[in-house]
Amino acid sequence: MHPFDEAIDLRSDAPHTFTGKTQPAYANMVGPFGGTTTAQLLQAALLHPERLGDPVALTVNFAAPVADGEIQWVARPVRTNRSTQHWIIEAKQAEGLVATATAVFALRRETWSSVEAQMPTSVPSPDTLPRMPVKNMPAWPQCYDMRFVEGAFPSAFDEKEQQHSRSCLWVRDEPPRPMDFASLASMSDSFFPRIYIRRRRRIPIGTVSLTTYFHADNALLAQVGARHVLGVAKALNYRNGFFDQTGELWSPEGQLLASTHQLVYFKD
Amino acid sequence: MHPFDEAIDLRSDAPHTFTGKTQPAYANMVGPFGGTTTAQLLQAALLHPERLGDPVALTVNFAAPVADGEIQWVARPVRTNRSTQHWIIEAKQAEGLVATATAVFALRRETWSSVEAQMPTSVPSPDTLPRMPVKNMPAWPQCYDMRFVEGAFPSAFDEKEQQHSRSCLWVRDEPPRPMDFASLASMSDSFFPRIYIRRRRRIPIGTVSLTTYFHADNALLAQVGARHVLGVAKALNYRNGFFDQTGELWSPEGQLLASTHQLVYFKD
Repeated sequence: MHPFDEAIDLRSDAPHTFTGKTQPAYANMVGPFGGTTTAQLLQAALLHPERLGDPVALTVNFAAPVADGEIQWVARPVRTNRSTQHWIIEAKQAEGLVATATAVFALRRETWSSVEAQMPTSVPSPDTLPRMPVKNMPAWPQCYDMRFVEGAFPSAFDEKEQQHSRSCLWVRDEPPRPMDFASLASMSDSFFPRIYIRRRRRIPIGTVSLTTYFHADNALLAQVGARHVLGVAKALNYRNGFFDQTGELWSPEGQLLASTHQLVYFKD
Repeated sequence: MHPFDEAIDLRSDAPHTFTGKTQPAYANMVGPFGGTTTAQLLQAALLHPERLGDPVALTVNFAAPVADGEIQWVARPVRTNRSTQHWIIEAKQAEGLVATATAVFALRRETWSSVEAQMPTSVPSPDTLPRMPVKNMPAWPQCYDMRFVEGAFPSAFDEKEQQHSRSCLWVRDEPPRPMDFASLASMSDSFFPRIYIRRRRRIPIGTVSLTTYFHADNALLAQVGARHVLGVAKALNYRNGFFDQTGELWSPEGQLLASTHQLVYFKD
């Protein structure tokens, strides 16, 4: 079983309630990688018997550190319309509430469509780029194959401040796994905190809020399969303890799969 | 009393519970302007006796059309830490749940800070630009003074598709009102739906999810006062019934006050 499938293997005990646990393969420095927590929150709604359609928007607020071990999710469809459904999802541990999420699911129809954002051009193919070394890194980056075009994670925290924090990379699950909504949600949190790229300085950080918009539907996810997708990320503003960053995940054929935004606490 | 202050004048009836109503000055084509609903949701937390600090992140999901008339808000601080506080807020009308929100509040500390996003340069001052004509528009745009540098709302829906949907404008409350978190939250939803700029075509649309990150603190808001701020907005991707757009609000002195993102339903 792929470690990601183990991570999102939730069991329903009672109406609206699911249990599962943190997955050691996706451990971070302390506690689990936030992307896995995000995927688990979404998975609770995806597995819910009253689910309508597929996710189009997801916001996760990280309320407290997630401890290694069991997690309980309560996923409630709070409003179901003809073609959209609204969710509130909570993650609880023995210690209390650790994360909240809201999600919007929808039945999509074919409409006029257009990609207005710019996918980076003249990007070398993933085959021609080395995989980011993951030795001495926490467990979770070892579950991704990342190949940086620009803005790699610093090999040393030498405190040489950079002009900007932009990154461009090819990324896929490692071992490869066909993309689905849960893995796309997780991958949307796989962009390293921009302040590390910008400041090359080791400081405490923590995402407080993460929003992802899913542009992909099942047909587009199937087209992507287990291949690398192109990620871009940049910071907007760092100010008095919080910064925000924004990212995009692109299919190799130039479709925007997801756009993602997050606000991160930092101590500097 | 400024119409915006009337809109956010909520009364607390019971613990966590507030009531108020839609404000005719901020009416949209049908029902109220979403920015006012957003401000009211935030205001319920701002007025709550257990509130800690100031808002740093807010996500609003518009679950159903808001009818003109009374609204009830239930604002619950679901997790309070030493320097951050997490909220779930719900808006209800006779018909049922109409909106949900989550918010993160925080006590800020002074840290290393840096604006990485680019404020538009060589922008004419608001005094030198005409105000957008608001005749024949719904009520809410009449409560803003918008002066477009680029990407104005189309004067006619001539269906001449544009290359892009970018806008740049000066905006303030009309009549002028010193900016606070509630008005900043509302203004973050004042960017017209990008598909109107891009397609110049009259189609049904509706924001389903709106996320705003507040970079400003009270001192910065006080510095802005009642002056115009510079807004920029653009769409990222339109696909099968939903598009997303992103915006920034800048102080005249070049501080990023808020970054804002939304996913919008469209029928085309």
